[in-house]
Amino acid sequence: MPKTISTLAPEWAVSEWFNTPSPLTLAALRGRPVLIHSFQLLCPGCVAESIPQVQRIERVFGHTDLQVIGIHTVFEHHAAMSPLTLKAFLHEYRIKHPVGVDQADGQTDTPITMRRFALRGTPSSILIGRDGSIIHQTFGVEEDMMVGARIAMALSAPVADEIATTTQQNDAGCADGRCELPSHSAV
Amino acid sequence: MPKTISTLAPEWAVSEWFNTPSPLTLAALRGRPVLIHSFQLLCPGCVAESIPQVQRIERVFGHTDLQVIGIHTVFEHHAAMSPLTLKAFLHEYRIKHPVGVDQADGQTDTPITMRRFALRGTPSSILIGRDGSIIHQTFGVEEDMMVGARIAMALSAPVADEIATTTQQNDAGCADGRCELPSHSAV
Amino acid sequence: MPKTISTLAPEWAVSEWFNTPSPLTLAALRGRPVLIHSFQLLCPGCVAESIPQVQRIERVFGHTDLQVIGIHTVFEHHAAMSPLTLKAFLHEYRIKHPVGVDQADGQTDTPITMRRFALRGTPSSILIGRDGSIIHQTFGVEEDMMVGARIAMALSAPVADEIATTTQQNDAGCADGRCELPSHSAV
Amino acid sequence: MPKTISTLAPEWAVSEWFNTPSPLTLAALRGRPVLIHSFQLLCPGCVAESIPQVQRIERVFGHTDLQVIGIHTVFEHHAAMSPLTLKAFLHEYRIKHPVGVDQADGQTDTPITMRRFALRGTPSSILIGRDGSIIHQTFGVEEDMMVGARIAMALSAPVADEIATTTQQNDAGCADGRCELPSHSAV
Repeated sequence: MPKTISTLAPEWAVSEWFNTPSPLTLAALRGRPVLIHSFQLLCPGCVAESIPQVQRIERVFGHTDLQVIGIHTVFEHHAAMSPLTLKAFLHEYRIKHPVGVDQADGQTDTPITMRRFALRGTPSSILIGRDGSIIHQTFGVEEDMMVGARIAMALSAPVADEIATTTQQNDAGCADGRCELPSHSAV
Repeated sequence: MPKTISTLAPEWAVSEWFNTPSPLTLAALRGRPVLIHSFQLLCPGCVAESIPQVQRIERVFGHTDLQVIGIHTVFEHHAAMSPLTLKAFLHEYRIKHPVGVDQADGQTDTPITMRRFALRGTPSSILIGRDGSIIHQTFGVEEDMMVGARIAMALSAPVADEIATTTQQNDAGCADGRCELPSHSAV
Repeated sequence: MPKTISTLAPEWAVSEWFNTPSPLTLAALRGRPVLIHSFQLLCPGCVAESIPQVQRIERVFGHTDLQVIGIHTVFEHHAAMSPLTLKAFLHEYRIKHPVGVDQADGQTDTPITMRRFALRGTPSSILIGRDGSIIHQTFGVEEDMMVGARIAMALSAPVADEIATTTQQNDAGCADGRCELPSHSAV
Repeated sequence: MPKTISTLAPEWAVSEWFNTPSPLTLAALRGRPVLIHSFQLLCPGCVAESIPQVQRIERVFGHTDLQVIGIHTVFEHHAAMSPLTLKAFLHEYRIKHPVGVDQADGQTDTPITMRRFALRGTPSSILIGRDGSIIHQTFGVEEDMMVGARIAMALSAPVADEIATTTQQNDAGCADGRCELPSHSAV
């Protein structure tokens, strides 16, 4: 069963959003559990397994305050997986939740969010608690039973006043829709 | 998400047990979440869907104090699904958790436990909370994501002193490994 | 692709039939391709894989003269898989094609047909050509694509006069609905 | 079972090839059965169902002279499914057989090959016999058992002299790697 690891999740870095009228920040979602789904549109495991799983998550937990966020973390075939192709992909696969394009760092093939979370590849998923900490992070796809259990636990956590206060303090370090946490300042 | 229905689960009525050195009662399991899996060995949906799901439940929640109990609720083809055939079935399907044969009532085709829980058929499953109440009961198979979420919630419930006290009182009405609750007294 | 092995199939030995008004013999089916499905009702691989495959075979090749025959080749848990339980099993799994109970030899656990075909276990399947020869025999389940290809080839074989003549000669060795071939005379 | 429809298959029109050192024509493949798989890389049904099926076809029939040809028949989201993205897609999905980009007609969204075969959408598949005729054409995915049966039948057809002669005559109408048949001359 899930063990809470008290590591505060870093902010994502997104160059373009789909399925949301305005840019989103993890900081602004503090208080709600957040599931980040890291994928690439040409990743077979993403298309065959993790995207269908995310859609089952949305069906089962659609009435809760869980927020699902897709991050298109392209680290290969960059030209082949442009935002233009992503847009058509989201349309064809009926993906309705907000999806952000992971921001290129201008130097390497690995985009910024992917490096901040130290993702090993796609698909990856990160479950973030109401207090902003990383509850669980995985590379690949875990079985539905376990995923359902983890999300239920994350949802059942109380929103304490203390957490809200901490959030305020952390938000102070965010600017331009991004939070540069000390532990990730190297990125 | 699951809503706790405060109906105290009735006791099962079992004529023969497999995979346990001594007979079990629901009353004695008070304090632990219990998942009852009602099946018949010749029920195609049980073999194809619910039994594999129960085995996934055991894999994911094997390190918790969830207790899985199978009840062989035969309501048709009684001679074809005798305890002798059930024993070989449990061996071939590698079912290791305790399985009880639902007790015939001597008058109808529907056995006693099945009637007490008002089961509509097989497969059925009943999730019972630490306080002995029925959290959820379903006919057929629900998706793993939801099942995992429900069990996680049941596991996260505290074992309050108050519950223990209530349990004592309810246990007072139990005899011969069976609790005859007022609401089920007709059985 | 399948290679025709020119081994004449031995006759089956059946003690009881289901889903047919009168006993069947392989000899009498000469001229038609025959698929023998060897199974046990408590064999998990049979229930999960080979029986559904046989039902797909019946759906795809239902308009041809392919004859599907089930043989209940019980070699363990004999009392648990009695004809009475088999009858209920066939009803519950909606199996409509003729199914014969493999005849016990009175001495060993392995029934007669199973030994004649030298089957290694269940599920097994044997595809027999119009000329009575074994086209392919397998232990376990092969992929549908290959199975479909083999059956189509068996169906496309002509029913030559020569085959009919040969059949007659082989039939000369058959008695009581059974052919005792020299190579199987030990049985 | 498949019925041979004696319609000579039109030639494909391809603007760019992958997985082949030089352009291919259907005319030059006369004498071999050909399976054309029409797909789009952003078509969910293609990725989830028809591409895996084509890969099973290749595994089962890899030792025969069946030729599998993919045609990327893009009729929507053209910019999103460019040859550059297709190339990365073929790499990621381990597609090794020749794939041609269906040629745009310069006027409509529907490319030329798609119109010549009157395809309704993707995925589609067309099985062409040794004599160049269309044996079967389908929109969507059929079950493996049936597909295997059809291909086996196509493979078992003899390459008669008569067919070769007919082929020569039809080839007379082909130029620039393309055959403009009277019935398709409107394209």
